[in-house]
Formats: sequence, C-alpha cells, structure tokens
Amino acid sequence: MSDFAHPFDAAIALAAATPNRRLGRTSADYWNMVSPYGGITAAVMMQAMLDHPDRRGTPLAFTINYLAPIDAGDFVIETELVRSNRSSQHWAIRLLQGEPGRVLAQVIAICAVRRETWSHVEATRPEVPPADACAVAPPRNATGFLQRYEFRIVRGKPFAANEDSLSHVWVADNPPRPLDFASLTALCDSFLPRIFLRRPEFVPIGTVSINIYFHAGEEALIRQGAAPLLAVAQAQAFSDGHFDHHGHVWSTDGELLATTQQLVWYKE
Amino acid sequence: MSDFAHPFDAAIALAAATPNRRLGRTSADYWNMVSPYGGITAAVMMQAMLDHPDRRGTPLAFTINYLAPIDAGDFVIETELVRSNRSSQHWAIRLLQGEPGRVLAQVIAICAVRRETWSHVEATRPEVPPADACAVAPPRNATGFLQRYEFRIVRGKPFAANEDSLSHVWVADNPPRPLDFASLTALCDSFLPRIFLRRPEFVPIGTVSINIYFHAGEEALIRQGAAPLLAVAQAQAFSDGHFDHHGHVWSTDGELLATTQQLVWYKE
Repeated sequence: MSDFAHPFDAAIALAAATPNRRLGRTSADYWNMVSPYGGITAAVMMQAMLDHPDRRGTPLAFTINYLAPIDAGDFVIETELVRSNRSSQHWAIRLLQGEPGRVLAQVIAICAVRRETWSHVEATRPEVPPADACAVAPPRNATGFLQRYEFRIVRGKPFAANEDSLSHVWVADNPPRPLDFASLTALCDSFLPRIFLRRPEFVPIGTVSINIYFHAGEEALIRQGAAPLLAVAQAQAFSDGHFDHHGHVWSTDGELLATTQQLVWYKE
Repeated sequence: MSDFAHPFDAAIALAAATPNRRLGRTSADYWNMVSPYGGITAAVMMQAMLDHPDRRGTPLAFTINYLAPIDAGDFVIETELVRSNRSSQHWAIRLLQGEPGRVLAQVIAICAVRRETWSHVEATRPEVPPADACAVAPPRNATGFLQRYEFRIVRGKPFAANEDSLSHVWVADNPPRPLDFASLTALCDSFLPRIFLRRPEFVPIGTVSINIYFHAGEEALIRQGAAPLLAVAQAQAFSDGHFDHHGHVWSTDGELLATTQQLVWYKE
C-alpha cells in the first residue's frame, strides 16, 4: 500500500491481465463490516472503465448492482465495450471472485463527449454554512472506510427519530485527495443510510443498487480539487425490506456535479 | 395484432427460442419518430424477465441503457439470471438485432421477494384534482405511441418557457388496461421531456438511460387496475448535451408505486 500516495489509489489499483480483464485486491482501508465499502467497489469498477485503452469521453451514467458480499482478497474485473460511436460509449462491467468466477457486482455505464449546449441547473443547493465553519463529526467506527471520509453534518442527526431523512453533509476524502471520477463515484455511496435518520436503533442494512448521473466534466472536478463536497439526500420510501434515497453532490462553489439514487436492503 | 386484447400486449409478446433467448417484433402502435418508444422497449425487456421460468419475486430495481436506434422488425432478447438466492435475483438482459446480433439496449435488474417490515413513505404526493375533474390533453401526434396514452396535464405546459420543469400529469393506457409491472415500466418513460417544459421550440432528443425502483408489490398494481396514475417529475440539470429528470409514479389512491430517474440526450 505504501507505494501509493493515498489509500484510495491503492484500493482502486488494477493490474492488466488483458485490457478487458483486470486484477484487483480488496483494501482493509475501505472495509465495511463483512465486505468492502460499496463505494470503493463502484470506484474500482469505474476505474477499470476509465483505464481501458478504448475509453473515450467522460462518465455520464453509471449503475451498479451488488449481487453478493465480496470476500477479502483478489478479484477480477471484466470490462466490455458493448457499443461505441462518435459521441458516446456503452459499457458492461462485472466483478468476479473464485474459479469458476462468481459475479458479485455488475455495472452498466455510459461515457460521452461533453459538448457546448444551452444549459441550466434547475436543482437548488441548500443554504448551508461553509465547510470550515462546520464541526467535523467524530468517527462512527475506529477502523474501516468511515475513517477514510471527513464528515461535517449540517442537517440530519444519525440514530435519531428525525421528522424526515433529509441530510446536508460536507464530505471529503481523508486524507484529502484531488477529486476525480473514481473518487466522486465512491463519494456517491458515502451518504448516511436513511433508515438511521428515521430510527434510533441500528438495523442491518446493505446497498443493493446505486445509479449516478454525472452533470459536470473533468474541468469541474479539477477546479474542485480536494475541498469538501456538499452531499444532500433524502429517502422517498421505506417499504417491504428496502428503502431508497435520492441525492445531489455539489461542488464547494455550488456546481451540481452528480445526482444519484440508491436502493438499500434492511432487515426489519 | 388482433389476437391480443390490447396493443400493449401485442407489443410485448415474445416467442421462446429458449428460456434465455426470446423473439419479439417492434410494434407500429408504439412507434416514436425513428425507433420504438423507449418505454415499450423497456417493457418488453421487463416482460422477458417476468416470463422466465426461473424468475422468483417481483421487480425491485430496473435500469435500461439505450445503445442505438432499433429498426422496425424482429429482435432478440437475451436474458441471463446472473445470481439467485432465497430472497433476490440479479438479471442482465440485452436486446439485439441482425446477424451477428448488435446490442441495442441493455438492462440490469433485480427481483426480490417482498416481506413485512417497518414501512414509511417519506415522499409526499402533490395535491391535485382527481383525474376525472381534469381535461384530457389533445393528442400531440396523430400516430405512434402518444396515441397509446391518455394524458391529463395538471401542471406543466409543454412547449412553453415555464419557470421550472415540474409537471403533474394523470396518465393511463389508452385503451384502458389493468396495470402490471410491464405497463408500469413503460409508463415510467411517458413523462414529458423536461426540455419541452423550459423551451418553447422543439429540439431533437433521445432517452439514453432510465432507472426505476418499484416500491409496491403485485397487490398494489392489481388494486390500481386501469385507473389513471399520477406522474410527477422535475429536471435537475440541463448541461453539455444531456438533461435528467427525477420522477414519482403514484396510484390513484396515493400509494407510491415507483420512483424513477432518466437521462436524455438533446441536440443544442
């Protein structure tokens, strides 16, 4: 790990068996209970696409479904460029372990060449104090991926019976790291699980699907650098063993970088 | 077509080459400009999963990416059950045309057995007059899929420079047809394209990705029957050639049936 400047870079590092088949290894730095943090799994699958020699354009849409827990150790990522034209590419990506390989996560994603058009952001960023005026939340766990993020909670008290699940949180990689599409993908899973904003007690949960739309290009991510992002999310429904949330990720300067929704299994 | 009670049933009818390979044909009744209506393509791929002899549980999450226009005529749907356990199933589904088959749409989806848990709907349904108090919108086109829906627009005037893109629309299959997961999937693409709610002029558009979470089970769909659904949606961003929307589909009685987001290409 010490070959890398940041534990995130170590966690998403891939060796090439072939361009369509990459070899990775789970990271203790991004571990979560029984399996890797879902955000790091999404990020390493994003990275396999970003690294692919045929990749053109930048990520536009990315959907990951989690099939089963990933064991600590080696994994394979299979990347397929399903279709490519002048302006966009369609990808299918799978993460496997064991022989014969069991599929443990699957992704479909789109890359596109961004181009100048009429533009307008209709979503509105909530009014919040700047990150440096907000206290850093004490770590919820002594080890694992929660150590790898710095959270400043502006709205939404975890493990409380709040009247709604809306949260406003400044979030940054810890230690700080300049934003890129892989880390933005991971950050899209760093939202507090919504059920912990409605019920005071812990219940077992597990993310089953995340969908992300990227609304900004590489320049916006470079402008953002390592500064905290504003993450806003709210649940829509808790029903029959699954809840969702819908979220926005804003740059420090108020640019909408990504919108995301997520579906989460919960026990009871 | 006349073998079927409803043009929707004709449009999603599939013959089995094998359980994992089904044969279908595009429908003139659901045609849209240069290609089938995206909602009917989503519905027929959903139907291939629903019809599969190994399918258990009901749809929970469904994401479709559109790769290229589908020509009028025959197509193949390849359905793969990637993983199955006691409570959930993960699927990958592709629509192909030609020899060798070109992939024109790809889906990843999850089915799950719904179970009793603590439940709470946090999204709120807007206050709107009942459907039968709202005028049916005149058809926007004389032929094609828009004829297959009855729209009653409560909020959001198309082809106008509205101050936001929020729309409230009662929508039903035309002629009426009892709701099921295939038709609910199709209805999730019946929202007005958001750009037509912000700009008075027509611009070429095309949906590239739809994500749907199903929040209710089969009983709720049966209760709904053929009555109009309330479809609510709003764009979040128009930028660099793509816009999105985030939407809710409510039953007549105010039950949240589905949440959905969609990404759409636009020309300028």
